[in-house]
Amino acid sequence: MSTTDLFNDLTAGDRSALARAITLVESSLPAGQAAARTLVERCLPASGRSLRLGMTGIPGVGKSTLIDALGMHYLNAGHKVAVLAVDPSSERSHGSILGDKTRMVRLAQEKNAFIRPTAAGGMLGGVARRTREAMVLCEAAGYDRILIETVGVGQSELDVDHMCDLNLLLTITGAGDELQGIKRGIMESADVVVLTKTGGDNTKRATQARNDLRNAIHMLPLRGSGRHPQVLLTDAVEGTGIEALAALTEELHAQDTANGYVAMRRQQQSLHWMHKAIEEGLMDWFRRDPAVVAMLPGLEEAVRTGRTSPFQAADDLLKILRTGAAPRS
Amino acid sequence: MSTTDLFNDLTAGDRSALARAITLVESSLPAGQAAARTLVERCLPASGRSLRLGMTGIPGVGKSTLIDALGMHYLNAGHKVAVLAVDPSSERSHGSILGDKTRMVRLAQEKNAFIRPTAAGGMLGGVARRTREAMVLCEAAGYDRILIETVGVGQSELDVDHMCDLNLLLTITGAGDELQGIKRGIMESADVVVLTKTGGDNTKRATQARNDLRNAIHMLPLRGSGRHPQVLLTDAVEGTGIEALAALTEELHAQDTANGYVAMRRQQQSLHWMHKAIEEGLMDWFRRDPAVVAMLPGLEEAVRTGRTSPFQAADDLLKILRTGAAPRS
Repeated sequence: MSTTDLFNDLTAGDRSALARAITLVESSLPAGQAAARTLVERCLPASGRSLRLGMTGIPGVGKSTLIDALGMHYLNAGHKVAVLAVDPSSERSHGSILGDKTRMVRLAQEKNAFIRPTAAGGMLGGVARRTREAMVLCEAAGYDRILIETVGVGQSELDVDHMCDLNLLLTITGAGDELQGIKRGIMESADVVVLTKTGGDNTKRATQARNDLRNAIHMLPLRGSGRHPQVLLTDAVEGTGIEALAALTEELHAQDTANGYVAMRRQQQSLHWMHKAIEEGLMDWFRRDPAVVAMLPGLEEAVRTGRTSPFQAADDLLKILRTGAAPRS
Repeated sequence: MSTTDLFNDLTAGDRSALARAITLVESSLPAGQAAARTLVERCLPASGRSLRLGMTGIPGVGKSTLIDALGMHYLNAGHKVAVLAVDPSSERSHGSILGDKTRMVRLAQEKNAFIRPTAAGGMLGGVARRTREAMVLCEAAGYDRILIETVGVGQSELDVDHMCDLNLLLTITGAGDELQGIKRGIMESADVVVLTKTGGDNTKRATQARNDLRNAIHMLPLRGSGRHPQVLLTDAVEGTGIEALAALTEELHAQDTANGYVAMRRQQQSLHWMHKAIEEGLMDWFRRDPAVVAMLPGLEEAVRTGRTSPFQAADDLLKILRTGAAPRS
C-alpha cells in the first residue's frame, strides 16, 4: 500500500491504517523508515490539535486503571483517546508496560479509543522518538486526547516531559519514602501529582499526605507555566477523583493554550527533538563509518592500556571520520 | 617555556610547574590546548600510580574540613596529596567550591600537598575532562593520593564516579530527608558513606542513622566491586573516625588493586571518556560548520512553526554537514 493510501485511510479515521502507520514508524528497515518519514511529514499539518498528557508512575501505582477511568471520562465528553507508551525497558524485554491491553478493560472496547502496546524493540535507540512520531499520526487520525505513559525509569520521565503539554505524576501514599520520591519528581516536571488508591482504609493517610505535599510544594520554585503542581486524590476502582482530575486537566490546558504557554512549550520541545536527533545521527554516522570501524579497536586498546589518552584517541577518530584516513602519528 | 621543560620540571616535583601545566590544560586557546595535549600524553606513562578518591557531598556537609583531616593522615603516612574539584557551577559562577583554600588550613601549608582551586570557567563544556587531565599531571608529579571533590549537583557526581577508584559520599545526619538522599546516592555510586559532624550532641542520632543505613544498604544489590557500601561516623573537628576512614580507603584500594578491579574499572573509565569526547567533538564540529551555521536558523524556524518535523530537519542538517551543501527539497 502506498503512503498516500495509508495517509488517506488514516486521516479518514481508519484504525487499522493508524496501526499500520505506527508499525511503519517502528520499522528498522531503511525502506520502512523512508516511508514513515514521508507519512509523518504529511501528517504534521493535521497534528497538534490535542491535549498531550504525560503519566508517570512506578509499576503498581495503578497507571492502567487510572488511564482506563480517565480515558472513559474524555470519551464521554466527546473526545477520541489514544494511549501510547515511552517504555525504557522495551529495547531489551520487548515492553513491560502496555503489553497487557486487558488492564484497560473499558477503554479497550471503545471504538473512539486507540491503545498501542509498546513495540517489540528492534531499532537502535529512539523509543521516545517513535512515540513522538506515533503521537503525530494519532493526532492526524483525529485523536485529541493523547495519554503517554511511562514508568519513570532513567531517561523516560524526561522524554515524556519533552513531548507532553501536562505531566501527571502518579504516586501511592506510603511510609514516607514515596513522598521523598514525589518531591524530587515534582521539582523536575509534574503539573499535577495524583495520589492513587486513596479510597477505603487509605483515605486518612492519603489526606495527610496531600496536605504534606501541598506544604512542601509551596516552598518550591514555580514551573514554567507559572503554577505550582496541584495535588489530587483519586481511586480509580471506586471512581473517586477522576472527574475532578479530568476537569483539572481541561482547565489547565485551556489556560496554557490561551496564554500561549502550550505553543511556546511545543516549539521548545520540537527544537529539543531536532537537536537530540542530530546528536543521535552524528553518533550513528560515526559508528557506521568504515574507516572508523577499522581503526576503533586499535585505538580503544591503546586507551585501555594507557598508551593514548582518551582525548587524543577521540581526536584521532574524529579526524579519521572527517578525512576518511588515519592521521599520521 | 617548552612543554619539554615543563614536563621535566613537573616530573621533578616542581609545584609551580604543575600549577602552570594545569593552567595549560584549562586553556581555551588552541595553542594552549595543543601544548596541553602533548604534555598530558607525555605524562600518561608516569600516571596511574595513585589512589583516586571521589568525595561527594552537598555544601555545608563539611567536605573541606574532612579533606583537610584525611589529607593530613595520608601525608603522615608518607604520601603526597593532591586535591582537585569537579565543580558544575564553575562555568557560570567561576567556581563555588575550593575557591577558599583557607578552609583546608593544615593541608594548605604542607609542601607535599597540592590544592588546586577550581578554574575560572572559559572553555565550553568539559569541566570534568579538565579535572581528569589535571589528575594525570598530578600523578606524573608524584602525587599518589588524589582527592576529587564535588557537590553532587546534576552530572558532577557521575563524572567523579567515572574518574575515581573509590567514591565517598559525605552526609550529615538529619531529620530523615537526608537518609533518603543517601539511599539514592548509595545505589548509584558510593563505596563508603561518611556521616560527618557526628560528635557532641549528634552522637546518638548519628549512631542510629548509621544502623538504619546499614540495614537499608544490605537490601541493595552489590556494587561492581562485589561489596556493599560501608558506613562510617566521622567528626573532622574532633578528629574522630578519620584514622578509621583513612585505613578503610587503604584497605579497600589494596583489595581492589589485588583482585584487578581497579585496573578493570580504569580501563572502562578511559573508554567512557573517549566516547564522551567523541560525542562532544562531533557536536562541536556540527556547531562550527559554516554550511550548518548558515542553514540552521531557517530549519529551526521550520521546526518551530511545524512545517518540518524535528527528525526531518535533523536529517537535512546532517546531510549538509556531510556534503557541505543543502539538500534539495
